[in-house]
Amino acid sequence: MAHIYNLDQIKSVLADLDPIADIEAGFVAYSGGRAVVPAVGELVFENPPGEAHIKYGYIKNADFYVIKIASGFYENPERGLPPYDGLMLLFEQTSGRLAAVLLDEGHLTNVRTAAAGAVAAKYLAPSAVRRIGIIGAGVQGRMQLEFLKSVTACRDAIVWGLSQTEVADFKSDMEPAGFRVETTLNVADVLRVCNLIVTATPSRTPLVKTDLIQPGTHITAMGSDTLDKIELEPDILARADIVVSDSRSQSRTRGEVSQALRAGALPSMDSVRELGEIISNPGLRRRSDDQITVADLTGVAVQDIQIAKSVYEALRKR
Amino acid sequence: MAHIYNLDQIKSVLADLDPIADIEAGFVAYSGGRAVVPAVGELVFENPPGEAHIKYGYIKNADFYVIKIASGFYENPERGLPPYDGLMLLFEQTSGRLAAVLLDEGHLTNVRTAAAGAVAAKYLAPSAVRRIGIIGAGVQGRMQLEFLKSVTACRDAIVWGLSQTEVADFKSDMEPAGFRVETTLNVADVLRVCNLIVTATPSRTPLVKTDLIQPGTHITAMGSDTLDKIELEPDILARADIVVSDSRSQSRTRGEVSQALRAGALPSMDSVRELGEIISNPGLRRRSDDQITVADLTGVAVQDIQIAKSVYEALRKR
Repeated sequence: MAHIYNLDQIKSVLADLDPIADIEAGFVAYSGGRAVVPAVGELVFENPPGEAHIKYGYIKNADFYVIKIASGFYENPERGLPPYDGLMLLFEQTSGRLAAVLLDEGHLTNVRTAAAGAVAAKYLAPSAVRRIGIIGAGVQGRMQLEFLKSVTACRDAIVWGLSQTEVADFKSDMEPAGFRVETTLNVADVLRVCNLIVTATPSRTPLVKTDLIQPGTHITAMGSDTLDKIELEPDILARADIVVSDSRSQSRTRGEVSQALRAGALPSMDSVRELGEIISNPGLRRRSDDQITVADLTGVAVQDIQIAKSVYEALRKR
Repeated sequence: MAHIYNLDQIKSVLADLDPIADIEAGFVAYSGGRAVVPAVGELVFENPPGEAHIKYGYIKNADFYVIKIASGFYENPERGLPPYDGLMLLFEQTSGRLAAVLLDEGHLTNVRTAAAGAVAAKYLAPSAVRRIGIIGAGVQGRMQLEFLKSVTACRDAIVWGLSQTEVADFKSDMEPAGFRVETTLNVADVLRVCNLIVTATPSRTPLVKTDLIQPGTHITAMGSDTLDKIELEPDILARADIVVSDSRSQSRTRGEVSQALRAGALPSMDSVRELGEIISNPGLRRRSDDQITVADLTGVAVQDIQIAKSVYEALRKR
């Protein structure tokens, strides 16, 4: 009989884990060809608008294969429900037997996504981060900022959101976590003062304009994970010295890279590096603090595989 | 918090349900364009050999969307484990929230597969079934025979299996269920005397030879659900008067129809009918008791959607 764990149990072991190291190792395995990760399964709903993603796969010769389901229904908060839900399933690679059900309600997807943002910043941000800009004042914006703590010494942040209430809530949540947080309803305010920017919105029109990006800026765009979502003007990817994606195969059809390809701002995938390659090969990273870098993260099953395995192993030891 | 049900709970409500009616309605919805069923997700393992399938989708404007995972690891019995495992997940279509986890250990996949066999026989078998032939003496062979009870009056069966022990076990399991069961280790014995045949093996070479098929025979081939599995010689599909598939889109790449296409025995999909069309349109069914008909079932998510919904609703009423 499979082991079933709820969100409280899962949260109780997260503090003992190192998701950033897990996710980093996952990207290296993925870009090194040691992971089997089929195309993302997707269901789309129109009324109310929502989507469910199935991400799944395995690292060869590991103990488990993992299937993760995550949904986003962005009108849920109007009905008093969280916008996302999900669970992760671990199966034995040698027998197919269901080993564990992690009823994480989407939390582990948030954790592994925030951890990937930290990995991108660790290898791509300029040496001195002046200020951190967070575009999108939701749960993932908070978690991205929190996870950046372990990869930069900077504790100055500015957050952009849709309303004064939203950004004020963000500020009052994140200041106790050790950040000085300024707020704005104007994206330009973020672009002018920050050289490490994370976008974490479900936007379908570009929020970040090319001409305001300062030299030396690194942007991690993690909000767009489908064909139609977009946070950055496509020209930003043309202007960037280095464009990195978590998965070249996913980026062909999802996220900012796919948008820039369709807009003609990127002529091909040839110049796009995978995050796992950047981690393994220092020669591929930024060469000066003037270069502009973009990491486009659509979320790869190898992240789910890694976080699910670590959480399950920690729960088993309890 | 999602409702979680184990196999015993699930089995306790199955007797109150009518899976054949549920599956029949599901095929009609599917062929009528009222279901959203993306391509099957698949993971393949080589050592030991195994596979996991993810089937998912929804009927438009219904309450739930369903994601089903089912695995087959055929060497498991050598280690004292069942060859299959699986679970079904129900999510609310309006919010994406996880409603229920059915830890059915693959049983509901067996039920909906056996129910589909019964639906195929109901609409395609000749009017007088002389004898039922079951090729494959495993769990699914037993369930196919059991489910045929409600669509034919015939209680004479012959089973083919790999070993004397296997077929003797089948006989002693199925005779108390009301069948007279003959056994054989030679497929030809089945083909000579039966006009309703079900193949239920994971074979990778054709077991059923063209020249022994009697006029008037209906064959339901449900074992082959991947690119490489095959139970029928491709020429059988060329010789058949009516070839039916549960899903034309799946049959392009999976199962007997895909094998016959690749072998050139079927020139195109044009002559292949969907089971949902056969149910809705009597004009597409057999016109005489001399015609040979073949139903190739690769298993469609709409079956999982239907059985999961019925089981969950019954469990909620308990």
